[in-house]
Amino acid sequence: MADTQANALKADETHRLIAGDKVEGTAVCRSNGDKIGVIDRIMIEKRSGKVAYAVLTFGGFLGLGENYYALPWNILTYNVNLDAYELNLTDEQLHGAPVYVDEADPAWETEVHDYYGVPPYWATGSD
Amino acid sequence: MADTQANALKADETHRLIAGDKVEGTAVCRSNGDKIGVIDRIMIEKRSGKVAYAVLTFGGFLGLGENYYALPWNILTYNVNLDAYELNLTDEQLHGAPVYVDEADPAWETEVHDYYGVPPYWATGSD
Repeated sequence: MADTQANALKADETHRLIAGDKVEGTAVCRSNGDKIGVIDRIMIEKRSGKVAYAVLTFGGFLGLGENYYALPWNILTYNVNLDAYELNLTDEQLHGAPVYVDEADPAWETEVHDYYGVPPYWATGSD
Repeated sequence: MADTQANALKADETHRLIAGDKVEGTAVCRSNGDKIGVIDRIMIEKRSGKVAYAVLTFGGFLGLGENYYALPWNILTYNVNLDAYELNLTDEQLHGAPVYVDEADPAWETEVHDYYGVPPYWATGSD
């Protein structure tokens, strides 16, 4: 994400895009390969067309105890070698992570971004 | 899309977000209700997390003659009354529309945005 836009375009011109339904189901792993969970779905801000959150699930057993966590899109980096989004969260960080809610309000959204220490999607460029 | 960000946030605080898999399958209609097609999938720019295109299909009969067209996300407006994305394209405009290609290169992407007369997603805000 430190790439300049020009470099990013040059380096990966034909692989800049990914289908939404391909993101869903993709694993999220730590750099060492430990699997944290799987992307269940993505949430898009309608107005700007920006992906706001990737909703992470650990995948409960037979649907029991399944939890959903909202990850700001910009904390995820796709790692080709892992074939997964790379994210180095400790177990402690995951246990305390904000749970996804369907009726996201601004206070909750601010909390999520503060938790991961990243600027909110609505502050990073506009249309 | 003419709303200022502040107004948009105020007016629709809890309905700003939509799940990616809910966009897929949503109809695209003209203002008078004529159905143009259906969103087959969305294409996301990985780097910025922006939805670049909604891929429109007319739905061929038994999979025959099915065509896919790339629509810049920012030409689509969701209309609650229609329960569809509203887009006033004539049949002529549709027949001449750029077909979706999997290996989108910059020239093709520029062509698509020029066709619909909208600024490209990579020119409207960055992160």
